[in-house]
Amino acid sequence: MSVERFARKELLSIGGASATRVALDPIPGLINLGAGDPDFDQPRFIAEAVYKAMLEGHTHYAFGGDPEFKAAIAEYYKKFNVDVDPQTQVIVTSGGSQGIFQAFAAILNPGDEIIILDPAYQGYNQPAAYFGAKIVRAKMMKDRNGLFRPDVDNIRSVVTERTKALVICNPENPAGCVYTKEEVEGIAELAVEKDFIVIDDEIYTEFIWGGRKYYPMITQPGMLERTIIVSSFSKTFAWTGCRAGYIVAGPELAGLINRVPVGICSVPVAFQKAGVEALKRGWSFVDEMRKAYQERIEYCVKRMNEIPGVRCPYPEGAFYLFPDISEFGVPSAKLCDGLFREEKLRIVPGTTYGTNAEGHVRLALVAPIKTLEDAMDRFERYVKKLTK
Amino acid sequence: MSVERFARKELLSIGGASATRVALDPIPGLINLGAGDPDFDQPRFIAEAVYKAMLEGHTHYAFGGDPEFKAAIAEYYKKFNVDVDPQTQVIVTSGGSQGIFQAFAAILNPGDEIIILDPAYQGYNQPAAYFGAKIVRAKMMKDRNGLFRPDVDNIRSVVTERTKALVICNPENPAGCVYTKEEVEGIAELAVEKDFIVIDDEIYTEFIWGGRKYYPMITQPGMLERTIIVSSFSKTFAWTGCRAGYIVAGPELAGLINRVPVGICSVPVAFQKAGVEALKRGWSFVDEMRKAYQERIEYCVKRMNEIPGVRCPYPEGAFYLFPDISEFGVPSAKLCDGLFREEKLRIVPGTTYGTNAEGHVRLALVAPIKTLEDAMDRFERYVKKLTK
Repeated sequence: MSVERFARKELLSIGGASATRVALDPIPGLINLGAGDPDFDQPRFIAEAVYKAMLEGHTHYAFGGDPEFKAAIAEYYKKFNVDVDPQTQVIVTSGGSQGIFQAFAAILNPGDEIIILDPAYQGYNQPAAYFGAKIVRAKMMKDRNGLFRPDVDNIRSVVTERTKALVICNPENPAGCVYTKEEVEGIAELAVEKDFIVIDDEIYTEFIWGGRKYYPMITQPGMLERTIIVSSFSKTFAWTGCRAGYIVAGPELAGLINRVPVGICSVPVAFQKAGVEALKRGWSFVDEMRKAYQERIEYCVKRMNEIPGVRCPYPEGAFYLFPDISEFGVPSAKLCDGLFREEKLRIVPGTTYGTNAEGHVRLALVAPIKTLEDAMDRFERYVKKLTK
Repeated sequence: MSVERFARKELLSIGGASATRVALDPIPGLINLGAGDPDFDQPRFIAEAVYKAMLEGHTHYAFGGDPEFKAAIAEYYKKFNVDVDPQTQVIVTSGGSQGIFQAFAAILNPGDEIIILDPAYQGYNQPAAYFGAKIVRAKMMKDRNGLFRPDVDNIRSVVTERTKALVICNPENPAGCVYTKEEVEGIAELAVEKDFIVIDDEIYTEFIWGGRKYYPMITQPGMLERTIIVSSFSKTFAWTGCRAGYIVAGPELAGLINRVPVGICSVPVAFQKAGVEALKRGWSFVDEMRKAYQERIEYCVKRMNEIPGVRCPYPEGAFYLFPDISEFGVPSAKLCDGLFREEKLRIVPGTTYGTNAEGHVRLALVAPIKTLEDAMDRFERYVKKLTK
């Protein structure tokens, strides 16, 4: 008796139970810098907005998403000089992860090719495999600071007739770069020339450091009809458990994505109403988080670079460090496993994000400075044993 | 410039913008008995439970769903003598509609056949078409009371080698029957004999009338490994806008469904915590709704049957009427259109649910008695004009 006989065949190649992210039992003394789950407590006004919305009777279907929420999202994009029509261009999704699935679901058939950078957030792989698409990796290249960056030539070299889309993440997780104007333009020109879609994961746009600037892909010439922005409130408002995200795309593509019958709008109406409030009143909270992240980055990069054998560039965006630990001559997965077992510090091996990132590890700076001090001590203590 | 070139090919057959349910602008004076969105206000304790959970910090990821919520769902099934392991058999979904999509997503490849009864809730069609499955309809048959019922022989007659699953809804929307012990047994035996899955939509189990009883499919011999229960809090707790549902299946099938990478658990943790409270303390509220529905059914069935040309059976479950209006000799879609335009009463033509239901209309009794009195007057006034 095997359940495989009932399975959609693509599921069989996705892997077993480990393919699904599951809640882990808490381990005493563990410092978890694995998942990118901000440690900040949401401001109280968000909980109050949810409560108020429910008492006001916002507990019924909102087919197609709450118009007020979609209008607030469209309004938000004015900040980036992106003109968005809330009626035809905004799709409410259950966080960024459902947005990714829906974007892929709208365009992929078996045999289509999708280009994913290397390294890249691992969450793109399973949906692509699920739809039977062929995943083609395009290597990122390190800049002089040691930051992985998109490389237009590398992307061009893997484009074929079957290329349906390229996935980018800007600002980048795990690599930490923020795409330059030239990088955005170069990718846009290639997408128009070769006629493919750019799925543009933008969940870290509020976390950009050192005066760098976010350049939107969707306003590049020819890109309104070729860009699917996937975004989420999860990181912006420390809102991971509240599951609210959205897609912004040109009206034609948005219309296509809207036809994926993934279910009636997944975000509780009360959270959509709270999202309106967050976009109005949440920015001082975001400022506070930004300051904390910057302090954490400043401290941890310094600590990392003081450890012989570690080269850790400053990230330009997001709240991860992605240090090069190749000098230890140990596979990143083994190093992370050792750190977990011997020091109760959870971080992520570079290979999670692609083979090109072997020799790197990712640390999510989602803990207060005090905890990060402890984490750096643990890291240092462990890797020093490796060099003996 | 056509976006179709980017589209997943199955989407093109799903239809245009009208394929997606969209929010309608309110129309002054309209009585909407179209969508099955209960008119009851949620009890305040549910809003309070959501608020409290957020203040307690339940605002972070709960990969795989909140264990306490899954345990409460498993506990709930004891009421039906169904033994459910919360760890391996419960999947949290964003309402029933996402549950349907995920169930289909776990098993369907293009060319697979899926049996949908006729009539049946229309929400099964798009997901099946999306996955390229061939939809095969099996006609329901009317019993002596005029209620459409599942017919095992009709189902058997359309089973082929390619049949992957049968979808049932028990209690039935729109037909209003509650499956008898014999019907459940007959379908189970056929499913085991022919080795297919039963996708078992059970969102109306709390709304059963006239002393009838709900017989679970999953506890039939051989059916633990062949049943996918899709359910939701939407109807049970008048919770449509809060988007919380679940799948219960045998451990093997549940493991398969869990591998569909539809996104990180879609239900905000605070709503999962509120779901625990609802399952503990929500039952007097459900009792009140039940009483109201029974009163509405009693009144409306009587009114319907007093109209010459209308034959309206009492539903055994759920809160819809599905009267036979074939004597007017008018297509159901035309009748509904006329009612909407001339009387501002929105109801649903039978053909929405299948060609076998031509000559019927569906009325969702989701309005107070006073409004239903008005609705019945409008209906009566309109159809009397038809017979002149």
